[in-house]
Amino acid sequence: MSKLRVAVIGVGRMGRRHAENLRFNVHNAELVAVADVDSNAAGKLAAELELEHSYGSTEALLSQQNIDAVVIASPPKFHVSAIQAAASAGKHIFCEKPLALTLAEVNEVEGAVERAGIVLQVGFMRRYDPPYIEAHRRIAAGELGEPIIFKAIGRDREPPPLSYFKSGSGMLFVDASIHEFDLARWLMKDEVAEVHAFGGAIACPDIGQCGDLDAGIVNLRFTRGAIGNVENFRQSRYGYDIATEVVGSKATLRIGYLQQTALTVLSCEHVSHDVVDHFLVRFREAYFNEIQDFVQRVLADQSPAITVQDARKALVISLAAERSYREQRAIKVSSGMEVAQPAP
Amino acid sequence: MSKLRVAVIGVGRMGRRHAENLRFNVHNAELVAVADVDSNAAGKLAAELELEHSYGSTEALLSQQNIDAVVIASPPKFHVSAIQAAASAGKHIFCEKPLALTLAEVNEVEGAVERAGIVLQVGFMRRYDPPYIEAHRRIAAGELGEPIIFKAIGRDREPPPLSYFKSGSGMLFVDASIHEFDLARWLMKDEVAEVHAFGGAIACPDIGQCGDLDAGIVNLRFTRGAIGNVENFRQSRYGYDIATEVVGSKATLRIGYLQQTALTVLSCEHVSHDVVDHFLVRFREAYFNEIQDFVQRVLADQSPAITVQDARKALVISLAAERSYREQRAIKVSSGMEVAQPAP
Amino acid sequence: MSKLRVAVIGVGRMGRRHAENLRFNVHNAELVAVADVDSNAAGKLAAELELEHSYGSTEALLSQQNIDAVVIASPPKFHVSAIQAAASAGKHIFCEKPLALTLAEVNEVEGAVERAGIVLQVGFMRRYDPPYIEAHRRIAAGELGEPIIFKAIGRDREPPPLSYFKSGSGMLFVDASIHEFDLARWLMKDEVAEVHAFGGAIACPDIGQCGDLDAGIVNLRFTRGAIGNVENFRQSRYGYDIATEVVGSKATLRIGYLQQTALTVLSCEHVSHDVVDHFLVRFREAYFNEIQDFVQRVLADQSPAITVQDARKALVISLAAERSYREQRAIKVSSGMEVAQPAP
Amino acid sequence: MSKLRVAVIGVGRMGRRHAENLRFNVHNAELVAVADVDSNAAGKLAAELELEHSYGSTEALLSQQNIDAVVIASPPKFHVSAIQAAASAGKHIFCEKPLALTLAEVNEVEGAVERAGIVLQVGFMRRYDPPYIEAHRRIAAGELGEPIIFKAIGRDREPPPLSYFKSGSGMLFVDASIHEFDLARWLMKDEVAEVHAFGGAIACPDIGQCGDLDAGIVNLRFTRGAIGNVENFRQSRYGYDIATEVVGSKATLRIGYLQQTALTVLSCEHVSHDVVDHFLVRFREAYFNEIQDFVQRVLADQSPAITVQDARKALVISLAAERSYREQRAIKVSSGMEVAQPAP
Repeated sequence: MSKLRVAVIGVGRMGRRHAENLRFNVHNAELVAVADVDSNAAGKLAAELELEHSYGSTEALLSQQNIDAVVIASPPKFHVSAIQAAASAGKHIFCEKPLALTLAEVNEVEGAVERAGIVLQVGFMRRYDPPYIEAHRRIAAGELGEPIIFKAIGRDREPPPLSYFKSGSGMLFVDASIHEFDLARWLMKDEVAEVHAFGGAIACPDIGQCGDLDAGIVNLRFTRGAIGNVENFRQSRYGYDIATEVVGSKATLRIGYLQQTALTVLSCEHVSHDVVDHFLVRFREAYFNEIQDFVQRVLADQSPAITVQDARKALVISLAAERSYREQRAIKVSSGMEVAQPAP
Repeated sequence: MSKLRVAVIGVGRMGRRHAENLRFNVHNAELVAVADVDSNAAGKLAAELELEHSYGSTEALLSQQNIDAVVIASPPKFHVSAIQAAASAGKHIFCEKPLALTLAEVNEVEGAVERAGIVLQVGFMRRYDPPYIEAHRRIAAGELGEPIIFKAIGRDREPPPLSYFKSGSGMLFVDASIHEFDLARWLMKDEVAEVHAFGGAIACPDIGQCGDLDAGIVNLRFTRGAIGNVENFRQSRYGYDIATEVVGSKATLRIGYLQQTALTVLSCEHVSHDVVDHFLVRFREAYFNEIQDFVQRVLADQSPAITVQDARKALVISLAAERSYREQRAIKVSSGMEVAQPAP
Repeated sequence: MSKLRVAVIGVGRMGRRHAENLRFNVHNAELVAVADVDSNAAGKLAAELELEHSYGSTEALLSQQNIDAVVIASPPKFHVSAIQAAASAGKHIFCEKPLALTLAEVNEVEGAVERAGIVLQVGFMRRYDPPYIEAHRRIAAGELGEPIIFKAIGRDREPPPLSYFKSGSGMLFVDASIHEFDLARWLMKDEVAEVHAFGGAIACPDIGQCGDLDAGIVNLRFTRGAIGNVENFRQSRYGYDIATEVVGSKATLRIGYLQQTALTVLSCEHVSHDVVDHFLVRFREAYFNEIQDFVQRVLADQSPAITVQDARKALVISLAAERSYREQRAIKVSSGMEVAQPAP
Repeated sequence: MSKLRVAVIGVGRMGRRHAENLRFNVHNAELVAVADVDSNAAGKLAAELELEHSYGSTEALLSQQNIDAVVIASPPKFHVSAIQAAASAGKHIFCEKPLALTLAEVNEVEGAVERAGIVLQVGFMRRYDPPYIEAHRRIAAGELGEPIIFKAIGRDREPPPLSYFKSGSGMLFVDASIHEFDLARWLMKDEVAEVHAFGGAIACPDIGQCGDLDAGIVNLRFTRGAIGNVENFRQSRYGYDIATEVVGSKATLRIGYLQQTALTVLSCEHVSHDVVDHFLVRFREAYFNEIQDFVQRVLADQSPAITVQDARKALVISLAAERSYREQRAIKVSSGMEVAQPAP
């Protein structure tokens, strides 16, 4: 098969980005259809991208013959059913993060993928971001010596609309911190053994009234003794700020990208510079790289770069952080796996 | 005409970049052929990009019917003849900088373009770089007040191979500083009235033996009284460093981009960060933007964004700088136009 | 009294710094004597600073008549006895941090100071550092809106000698993090309600064998709902790195000072810049400011800027962090006060 | 002689700074008197610094017996007469820059110093600034290879009052750029062979009406072939910005110090940081270091660190730049020495 025929399920901002990349930039992929419960939105995107087919449901889309793989970019609570349907139909799957919202769901996904013998890759796109790739390479090469402290912040400029927090996309630790937790595992080459979380909703009380947090801070202890901290905040106001640091016994490495266009204005009021304002801007290249890599792996019969197991392990940390926040105590990650369910 | 059918003349690194963008990224263009005096190189690139046609000469290429426009990326001394041939054949033209090496040549080009009634756009790609676009917007909006000082550095990490300096690509001021001279005109919204240049070839004596410079520094006086300085250097060794500053009566604006991936390594030896290493990396987006804009303008019957007149005015500054260096005195730009010819 | 006559107890690096400032830079102070259990060291410093008097004990020093105030810069475990003796003798006291190692000791100090009616000020010198002063001013002025997240790192380039960890100077959280805890209270204008700590000794196992940590990370929850994290590390190797951030509902403020002399070297190996290497360099001005302010306050019969109560509250957080680390659970700060004693 | 007894002539902001340093910070100096044509100002400063003596003229001051050395900080046009008087009286001299305004004056000074057998040191304080000292050390150690390009900017936040420009302190190139010219000689270990200058007074037309410039830009050619550029501007509005760069064949070195307190404010309007606002802030340490070094050199019978010859060579460059600006042509520095007089 010379080109991978891909369909996109869910045409929100992430689904749209994946669709555009598949349509225009990934040269060994062919975008063949899009689907969304809002069939108008699906139809509009199809027209814009000059596609023949759009659908109002995953089922309808899967009835189309010439589809080799699907990208699932619907809200997280719909991931599992979409994965099950696509796997049953023998389609390879690229699924946005978080793969699922509970461990029970991850187990279902894992079974479905195994039974179908398909490739499923998870969208932790930071692993495809050039600075993070380079950081990973240097750490793996031993430049830092023994990793000792992992630090990360992840701040959005503005929170998503309130409807987002009512849509079951998972609490802050599951929806946002999971990126940092995946980085922690990947960069430290270690697993998280224990977490402790504090959180709050001072900046955005509305988010608090949805039962979620606008700010969370999670202490980490790794199995080999390293420690760490992850902070997420929904409303920095100044910009989209993703920064990660690994302190090692020999050297320390910082990854950050506050500026967008390297423009500094110096006036009598202040010396200021521009900032990255949105994740689709900051990680444009990563989003392209990850979907391109997925296409190449499927075409080459290779296993996925980021597996269900990776998704499970990041989710376990997220759920443990959530539980730590709710129960006001540190939570051991291993013992918490079976019980770490979101509160009702 | 729904897609613009474009051919690329010259398949060195710049021609290759344009060809790749036209083939993969510019969606309303269709790359239909490439040509190079090295017909093997042209053939290889055609195979790589899955093109049907490649040629060993501009003439052969122009005999192909379905070509609407050509991108000229051959060495500068061949620009004029290629432009004349393409214009005679009624093709629109995107030509790399410098458009030509002498004012006599620019006059020839101007005549040919007028007679043929085609669009010719010049490849000053920095005008398509997002930080420069934003800087231009802010200056035009009056944020800086009156522009007072223009400063620019342009440094390559390593010089091109020695053959480059023997190939008649123009002296440092024509080949390299011309980018800064174009920025000076564009950002200051003013013309350069007088220049004074010093130069040397200490770092790369081989370049000196080719009659060229590895370092040049040019004082500028603008017609409305502002002043400035442009520095170019062929061998910074630390990276590709393009930085521009406009000092205004109300504020100052700096455009720079030393870092590539925002990665800092902190060790006991030093705290260091990565740097941009090459112009194809730094200006990747600008190269894409300029060729996309050219395609859109031609399809929409619009005039070019960067004209023969822009190319002429930047070249006049370059030639005046060269003459100032040779004659060891300041050169008025207006009076120098008719005589500013490169030394034999 | 036109000049305050001050003596310094303890002539290690901190005592020496205070003595030099008092001798040369604080113009309304007169340094009249130094004391150290190592009477040779005391004698040498006295000779160097051209003082008439040096002593081998606090008691001997206090028998000298013309002393108005003492600076206590001996190891922390000797602070309480020195304070009691000086207070009994009616001397005003400037005491290095930590004021004491247990809450019982703080109670003793408090009683002694009250009975003697003297001024006692504690050496949290960061409150005298110009960037921190400016940060405090801006936060107090409401520039950040509501404070939401407090973040701080404190990293030494190299740990003190192993003897330091055997000398009873308090665990990492008491000896080092206490600076960050004081900043947390001061900048957030709030008290810490709960902490959770992880720690390790991977980089310096020798420190671990002394029962101490080389790295610690402490989650904070403030009484009004804000959250935070403090990290301390003994061996960054790249430099002395003190950075603090307060995220607010309206804006965020960062205080940092990685560079020392603003010198950047750009070579083909790397682009690197210099860093601050030591706290006596970074906080030179703060050390001078705090001792000058102490002298002025005593001369003007003013109360101290940083009180026993401030020392107590920072120590309570330190001890709670230590207990959290030992008992592997989050510790409420208020309830932990009576029991938060260092392990035997 | 155990302490050097020093008097200060001229109590403007620079004279005041020197007086304060001598009074409080330079421990082997004793400030014994101050003088100013404004005898009230002299008297007030004497009272403030608790000095017994103040005078309304240099002559009156020199009649005081116990003076070993004088610091001359009066306006430049009074330097020569003060130097002659002090030298006749056998006093060692520290003189602010510029030493004199013409080469004829420098010749007079040189003769007077030689006849009197005294030490005269010139106040190019940047040679005493830690980052510049470190830069000089690294360049001298060969880290940069062969120096190829020298670049410097020197920008004041606001110009001095208009009276300053009417007081005969020398044109921009003599008053301001002379610092950069001295750095050029010192860091490049080479002499300037030729200059070319442009200038203007767009931002501050009042300065233009005094016959001076608010902005100047000077191309440099060094005797060994290196090139360079110096820019000075009187009204940056954003801060006091001194930055110097030496590009070498092996590496490049940048010295800069835009920030003052390392404070960054990140808000939805902008991400901004503080800046140095004044030369007395930026070079506080340098001003102290230079006057301390002068005192030590005189006490130790050593020759001055910065000589009349250094002052002469920097002034020659300044005067050549001024002449280049006036005559609108490049000026060879060697040939210009005898004629490079300021215009009437």
